[in-house]
Amino acid sequence: MIRVGLLGTGRIGRLHAKTIASHSESTLYAVSDIDSGSANELAVHYGATVKSSEEIISDSNIDAILIATSTDTHAGFIEKASLAGKAILCEKPVDLSLSRAKECLKKVSAANNPIMIGFNRRFDPNFAQLKKSLDDKEIGKSELLTITSFDPAPPPVSYVKTSGGLYRDMMIHDFDLSNFIMNELPVTISAVGHSLINPEIGAVGDVDTAVVTMIYADGKIAVIKNSRRAAYGYDQRIEILGSEGLLQAENIVENSVVKSTEAGVLSAKPKYFFLERYMSAYKAEWDAFIKSIKENTTVPVTLEDGVAALAMAEAATLSQSSGKSIQLKEVL
Amino acid sequence: MIRVGLLGTGRIGRLHAKTIASHSESTLYAVSDIDSGSANELAVHYGATVKSSEEIISDSNIDAILIATSTDTHAGFIEKASLAGKAILCEKPVDLSLSRAKECLKKVSAANNPIMIGFNRRFDPNFAQLKKSLDDKEIGKSELLTITSFDPAPPPVSYVKTSGGLYRDMMIHDFDLSNFIMNELPVTISAVGHSLINPEIGAVGDVDTAVVTMIYADGKIAVIKNSRRAAYGYDQRIEILGSEGLLQAENIVENSVVKSTEAGVLSAKPKYFFLERYMSAYKAEWDAFIKSIKENTTVPVTLEDGVAALAMAEAATLSQSSGKSIQLKEVL
Amino acid sequence: MIRVGLLGTGRIGRLHAKTIASHSESTLYAVSDIDSGSANELAVHYGATVKSSEEIISDSNIDAILIATSTDTHAGFIEKASLAGKAILCEKPVDLSLSRAKECLKKVSAANNPIMIGFNRRFDPNFAQLKKSLDDKEIGKSELLTITSFDPAPPPVSYVKTSGGLYRDMMIHDFDLSNFIMNELPVTISAVGHSLINPEIGAVGDVDTAVVTMIYADGKIAVIKNSRRAAYGYDQRIEILGSEGLLQAENIVENSVVKSTEAGVLSAKPKYFFLERYMSAYKAEWDAFIKSIKENTTVPVTLEDGVAALAMAEAATLSQSSGKSIQLKEVL
Amino acid sequence: MIRVGLLGTGRIGRLHAKTIASHSESTLYAVSDIDSGSANELAVHYGATVKSSEEIISDSNIDAILIATSTDTHAGFIEKASLAGKAILCEKPVDLSLSRAKECLKKVSAANNPIMIGFNRRFDPNFAQLKKSLDDKEIGKSELLTITSFDPAPPPVSYVKTSGGLYRDMMIHDFDLSNFIMNELPVTISAVGHSLINPEIGAVGDVDTAVVTMIYADGKIAVIKNSRRAAYGYDQRIEILGSEGLLQAENIVENSVVKSTEAGVLSAKPKYFFLERYMSAYKAEWDAFIKSIKENTTVPVTLEDGVAALAMAEAATLSQSSGKSIQLKEVL
Repeated sequence: MIRVGLLGTGRIGRLHAKTIASHSESTLYAVSDIDSGSANELAVHYGATVKSSEEIISDSNIDAILIATSTDTHAGFIEKASLAGKAILCEKPVDLSLSRAKECLKKVSAANNPIMIGFNRRFDPNFAQLKKSLDDKEIGKSELLTITSFDPAPPPVSYVKTSGGLYRDMMIHDFDLSNFIMNELPVTISAVGHSLINPEIGAVGDVDTAVVTMIYADGKIAVIKNSRRAAYGYDQRIEILGSEGLLQAENIVENSVVKSTEAGVLSAKPKYFFLERYMSAYKAEWDAFIKSIKENTTVPVTLEDGVAALAMAEAATLSQSSGKSIQLKEVL
Repeated sequence: MIRVGLLGTGRIGRLHAKTIASHSESTLYAVSDIDSGSANELAVHYGATVKSSEEIISDSNIDAILIATSTDTHAGFIEKASLAGKAILCEKPVDLSLSRAKECLKKVSAANNPIMIGFNRRFDPNFAQLKKSLDDKEIGKSELLTITSFDPAPPPVSYVKTSGGLYRDMMIHDFDLSNFIMNELPVTISAVGHSLINPEIGAVGDVDTAVVTMIYADGKIAVIKNSRRAAYGYDQRIEILGSEGLLQAENIVENSVVKSTEAGVLSAKPKYFFLERYMSAYKAEWDAFIKSIKENTTVPVTLEDGVAALAMAEAATLSQSSGKSIQLKEVL
Repeated sequence: MIRVGLLGTGRIGRLHAKTIASHSESTLYAVSDIDSGSANELAVHYGATVKSSEEIISDSNIDAILIATSTDTHAGFIEKASLAGKAILCEKPVDLSLSRAKECLKKVSAANNPIMIGFNRRFDPNFAQLKKSLDDKEIGKSELLTITSFDPAPPPVSYVKTSGGLYRDMMIHDFDLSNFIMNELPVTISAVGHSLINPEIGAVGDVDTAVVTMIYADGKIAVIKNSRRAAYGYDQRIEILGSEGLLQAENIVENSVVKSTEAGVLSAKPKYFFLERYMSAYKAEWDAFIKSIKENTTVPVTLEDGVAALAMAEAATLSQSSGKSIQLKEVL
Repeated sequence: MIRVGLLGTGRIGRLHAKTIASHSESTLYAVSDIDSGSANELAVHYGATVKSSEEIISDSNIDAILIATSTDTHAGFIEKASLAGKAILCEKPVDLSLSRAKECLKKVSAANNPIMIGFNRRFDPNFAQLKKSLDDKEIGKSELLTITSFDPAPPPVSYVKTSGGLYRDMMIHDFDLSNFIMNELPVTISAVGHSLINPEIGAVGDVDTAVVTMIYADGKIAVIKNSRRAAYGYDQRIEILGSEGLLQAENIVENSVVKSTEAGVLSAKPKYFFLERYMSAYKAEWDAFIKSIKENTTVPVTLEDGVAALAMAEAATLSQSSGKSIQLKEVL
């Protein structure tokens, strides 16, 4: 049984707590949070102990650390937990600063404990099936990838201000997903975006609607489309054209009921947001992490993957502001 | 060029006139109708001549007769036109009376001119594709057929009164379709029905909603579902389970636009009624008739097929009123 | 926390054990099985105690009994557990014998402990949504219901022999579902069926493919179609025509990936069988049972419902063998 | 009856001939082609006269000219036919040279005869329905448009050489479609592309796979994706995100048959190519042209529209080669 220390008991921490506790080979051993009330409540619910983050990291009874604290603490906790020899699963992103993330990578590079970044979408069973079909050459050679990723509703402007911007906060998931699907990093990145949904988002220097085009070494192309608002729910689709066909992962909808009336044929909307849409992905992510620890294999999403996605977000941010294409190597 | 005489210039006659005139190997030569104004108008539009039905049938310049008059005249015109050696395409049904239809079949049995009954649905490209997949054994051996056939709106009660009843007037299409798909006649027929849409339809002795179950010699089963009303348009589907899979012919919808909003995901309704839904089937039907004439081959829907479908309607009507299953051989 | 005693630790018992254990308001307290090895293994896994069924029923620490033993023991255990004042969730059917089921109902009728029958499909979120739309009059008045229910593969003939036949063993789920959707029992039931998949099933007096047609007091119609084999997986669909439209609950498929190649557009099959398809329904069923106990409300599927479904299976069996329609009141 | 002179009797000319001849208010009066055999054959089939293009343009019996000759002759014929006062429907593009197209526009600007450019996709009933829903504000304010437009198979390299390149030859349709949907021209255009399908296409300086991103004055974004090859047929989709929802025009498939087997759920491919996919669009295009002439209204696709689409293709070509975004005003 792998004993887990959870750093951070907010919304995403609680989701992980449930997954940890219900997994047959892991147990929630200790939790910490700057909000001690939140930490206490969660500890009681799962029979875990409340400790400080330092205590958790140094506790020799704990095998693995799940980092679900605020982004600015991720890199520091990765470094400390790595030094303590723990297996680590850290929520995305590694940091908002690419240089800080790179520094973190450098610092822990000598260690050989498992460090995994929480890009949950790789573990969605639908996307995983698409990836499998692609790797099995069911549509031949990849040519043109499109990722559609729209949130149901924009966050408050207060959140946007400290988010690092759409590319680092939201599209970073899609950057990682494109790396997962394409099995390589792009060479060139171009981004266009605007605050079409809320001009206040533009006023604080961010965009809410964006399109990024990426070119790979052999000329393949990828397009990522992001919007902070889709009135019909969380729109999460992948589509890839290959030399012998097309693969699409369609949305997961709320139910299978179809109603035909004089008004037309009405079916259910996509599931509302990531908690509903990606619940099975979070479970599969945790399962993959546990499996890596037990079988002593490389984690499926590495710290390098986390840095790469952040570098792509950096390049997109630069492209957006300069109006020019950016070579990924300029930032990586 | 095959010269065609059209008997009857009502709604269905006009549809055929257009198909005849636009076919590269047929021309509309003469038309007749008890409403001379209607006949004149159509004749002018297509450069045809107005004649009486007798004149058309005896005109040696005319190669083929299309019978689109009222049902009670069908059998008589088939007999006369057959005697005159014409190729004949007659709208369904042969007659409302099974004995009259059988008499007609007997009278013309010695002749060898082409006599085809207008069961247009056999020529729908979607149903034809389903039939082809079935015949190619793509789902193995047939086991369970379901035909869903709902009209968009019920006819006036005045029409219902003289229609011969739902089984002879409406479900006869589906009886023929089941014979087409199954390649054999059923042994036993059971019908249940009620006037759920309009009690006045019940008051004149008819039903507006009905389900017929049929058993074949080897135990295969077919279900036909009819309703005189589908608020969302003309619902025309076929589904057949076989030993290795399922084939479904889905509805043809008005357009391919899908709208996703907070209210759900809305797509277009089925095409409204037979004129919209089966236009390509009517063209393919005429083409098949012309081809049979030119290549001197058996027509794809024979007078025997017309009599068989009518016998099934008769059996269903008997089953409905008696509450018992009817052996098709009791009526055939 | 409701302490649960589980009678029967076979496939379906294990499924329930997991649901009981993972529910926040119930705990698996004790288990029994005629196979003591199976009972021990399950008890160890969930920290429960192994006892005899008698001990479980008489244990005052136990609040609720889940009966997942062989069908012939259901009625007896219901009676005993009722006498002991336990809340009861019993797997379907109550018994293979309608008279025995009626006797059971009579015996426990004076008790007022919760007795619920495990017709899990009522709790499927898709069917529940269809039912809600119907009750909200979104398609007006109900007219014609169709339930399609095909298993992926037939059971062994040895199972068929003691199953009570397709109507009692398999279609009983669909009978209950029709009662759930229609909110009333049918008046007349007609069944046709045959052993199309495996003649050995016919040799032991059963069918593997069947269609039942039911008429309600006001003339509404329901059709249930069953097959023991669907090469493409577990086909579970409901469709109901109303005065203002159509509601359909479509299949739940394995994933959302669509592959377009020269061969056509390929999407995923329905989930394989009931363990995959109805997992969320089993959870919702248990949740509803717990809620009934805690809130002291009537259970959503009563013992009367269990007897009604069995009576419909009895009527269908009689109709199948006699070739006649059966009035439900003849058997009820 | 509008008498039409057809210049060019190749594949697209023949398609138009059929449409002209079957329209109730137009007749094919004369045809010309540099291949006199082709011209003769078509003339005989429709009862038209063979003439030289000059004779057709100067024939006072002719009301309208349809230009379906090679691209390099379009501008000249438009100028001559305009001078002769004819109504003109000219196939796209106006010319491969933007300056030549602008010159043509300037020369005929004083005339007020109808000059329409044959961007057929505007007349597709599905796209027209999407446009109508958009104009009716069914999804609020437009934000992000995506056009997917893949041909089934690449043309021969010999064709590519003289085609003007993918942007002028193929994507020009999508540029016009984006103008139609957005009701305005973009400000900035960025193109990336590569010869992924056939390196020989790259060797002659063209691409076969391309993505263009366009920004509008208020920040709206459009993405056009083109590929010369889709193994599954002609992929023609539009998708637009608005403030209140999403509109999608999905592909039109060959038939409505769905086959479920152990291998999955297989449905039909998109219709193969433009002749199959856009037949109804060509008819609607001709009908709109005839209506403009008869009602003396502005044609729905003007010569200015033709020049605008060509300018966008020019900008995309420049962007592709320079690796920079291009302001449309730089070329327009």
